[in-house]
Amino acid sequence: MSHAPSEALSRRHQTIRAALAAQSLDALLVSALPNVLYLTNFRGSSGAVVLTADRLLFITDSRYFTSIEDTRGTAYECPGLELVRVESSYDAKIAEVIAALGSGAPLRVGFEAPHLSVARHRWLERAIASADAGRPELVPCDGIVERARAVKDRYEISVLKEAARRLSEVATTVFADLQRGRSERDVALMIDWCIRRAGFERSAFDTIVASGPNAALPHARPGDRLLAVGDLVVLDFGGVYDSYCVDLTRTVCVGPAGERERQVHAAVRHAHDRAVSAVASGVSRFDVDAAAREALAEAGMAEAFGHGTGHGLGIEVHEDPRIVRRRADVDARDEALSPGMVFTVEPGAYFAGWGGVRIEDDVLVTDQGVEVLTSVTTDLLEI
Amino acid sequence: MSHAPSEALSRRHQTIRAALAAQSLDALLVSALPNVLYLTNFRGSSGAVVLTADRLLFITDSRYFTSIEDTRGTAYECPGLELVRVESSYDAKIAEVIAALGSGAPLRVGFEAPHLSVARHRWLERAIASADAGRPELVPCDGIVERARAVKDRYEISVLKEAARRLSEVATTVFADLQRGRSERDVALMIDWCIRRAGFERSAFDTIVASGPNAALPHARPGDRLLAVGDLVVLDFGGVYDSYCVDLTRTVCVGPAGERERQVHAAVRHAHDRAVSAVASGVSRFDVDAAAREALAEAGMAEAFGHGTGHGLGIEVHEDPRIVRRRADVDARDEALSPGMVFTVEPGAYFAGWGGVRIEDDVLVTDQGVEVLTSVTTDLLEI
Repeated sequence: MSHAPSEALSRRHQTIRAALAAQSLDALLVSALPNVLYLTNFRGSSGAVVLTADRLLFITDSRYFTSIEDTRGTAYECPGLELVRVESSYDAKIAEVIAALGSGAPLRVGFEAPHLSVARHRWLERAIASADAGRPELVPCDGIVERARAVKDRYEISVLKEAARRLSEVATTVFADLQRGRSERDVALMIDWCIRRAGFERSAFDTIVASGPNAALPHARPGDRLLAVGDLVVLDFGGVYDSYCVDLTRTVCVGPAGERERQVHAAVRHAHDRAVSAVASGVSRFDVDAAAREALAEAGMAEAFGHGTGHGLGIEVHEDPRIVRRRADVDARDEALSPGMVFTVEPGAYFAGWGGVRIEDDVLVTDQGVEVLTSVTTDLLEI
Repeated sequence: MSHAPSEALSRRHQTIRAALAAQSLDALLVSALPNVLYLTNFRGSSGAVVLTADRLLFITDSRYFTSIEDTRGTAYECPGLELVRVESSYDAKIAEVIAALGSGAPLRVGFEAPHLSVARHRWLERAIASADAGRPELVPCDGIVERARAVKDRYEISVLKEAARRLSEVATTVFADLQRGRSERDVALMIDWCIRRAGFERSAFDTIVASGPNAALPHARPGDRLLAVGDLVVLDFGGVYDSYCVDLTRTVCVGPAGERERQVHAAVRHAHDRAVSAVASGVSRFDVDAAAREALAEAGMAEAFGHGTGHGLGIEVHEDPRIVRRRADVDARDEALSPGMVFTVEPGAYFAGWGGVRIEDDVLVTDQGVEVLTSVTTDLLEI
């Protein structure tokens, strides 16, 4: 398993420290595990970070002391990490760390408001208020680390490229092995097996194999339905490779495709291609969504495309940037795409009772435009 | 896939409504998905419930309208469910539902403080404050639905028994197929395959295959290490069956076991048996933990057992009751075990650099005492 090099972690810390300074924060409590991993290379199930302008306190329990100490002196150790050992309660230790940050002027300590529960926040507020020194103020923040994560660094891009290459191989193997008469569930199991055999830690989400009318449901669960001649089958699967997620969808036809199947597939492929072509540095993510939507509208299928065009990929399978429709109630910050962003492009068209088509690839925004990381034909396969 | 019968859902609603009345709450916003599933049979990825004394408002988006409507008139429809359709934002719709609950005296609306984020809570507070009518008060609550879930009903017990039976069969198959020279990762993949073949939806957590010195780490990840003669190998795996989790651990020896391996295994088995024997209705869950801990202390291995003795099983793989050490900072509510509780008993002994042993079964508290749901020999297997 590879890890981000120490220099990459240093740059990430500096990015977050600049964001803290811009918001007049003295520290940030990072409690969301994907953000903790991003800042420290820590892949365990319990840990938190308190980051200040010159310190990085990493709070974890005895299960992980050894693995943290083992990284010391390696090329991927977390620079400046001070290990804080939890004996009983994480929140008690976090409160202690925050209370001890400094006396003098009250510190402003940011916390991740979308990730910290009301119960934990109330507990921390009380514990800090009862501490002697400083009385830091807890300040709700939103997306400080997530915003940094949206632009991948060189290490992350290399991992995502390798992951996408392996997932494309999985797809090729799977499509070659698909047979009519097998159940959706069996096909999903075969896909998950191939994903693991290809070196992924696990599937990135519950694999979707949706056949016939089930293909009309974008989030169908694989069931006992057998793949039958004439079915369109949506196959949507992903894997986690060295902690990074990739995601791919193709729609195949069981036996020769009928005219309607070909039409819908062609319209979705056109929408996919138009959206991919629209991707470039500086372009609005809403305009990438609009490109897919317009292509489907031209084919008279505007109503058939109910979901967003894509989502960022990284430590989480759904992260920033969100490639969605421009709407009054959607946060329009960070609208412009930047080199280093990696996301899916996955338009679809769904018709209740009939079925559906979705085609999904993973793309990287580059200085030159766009690079498609997954590589599997988008022709309509007939199995 | 089976579902809880409507009568079971009705009883669950009544239990929660009684808890609301006891806390002088007019309604409860249920946002944690396992709790939503428990109250409605809904297995999707986005949905919320607002439960009042006489209404159940179920809030979800267009992906799930059809599946909700399809349950109408079935034996497992959710009684009294009123479908509230989200067009754009869940929180906007939730605020609207809460604001519309009633005018007159301000209503007290509970929310799940350990599950609702500070960001969502702040948004809801503001949205409700700006509404015309009623101005309900949002009241932080803790564990109302979880407390009900800790005692399984007849439907849940039947599912958990079947799941435990299937997981035991998986274990028997896996142990018969184990071979030296295979990597931890390959064995884990084989286990996950067997779990899926046995009808489980997925593994309940990342399967643990920890061999030799890795067995000293209770949460080791399967790696490239090959199973070698003389190794103890901890195999810990679980499955989700009809949305319910079961969990099993055995420790095997590669080749003939040495004396120390036999001693540690015997001590852990004794601790396991003593803890299982201690389980009965009315007994303190802390005393079940103490039974395991005392047995290991008698063998001079008190320090080698660093984790809790067990955890509840149900819609989540770690839920109430927690079978842990009595401590000042552990919530001592709901200390006594009740018939219908299902949890793991999984003592272990771990020695850094040498290895470890863990033995885990799933048990049900009955009127008569205890029933062990998993059934695999606890003899030390030599493979």
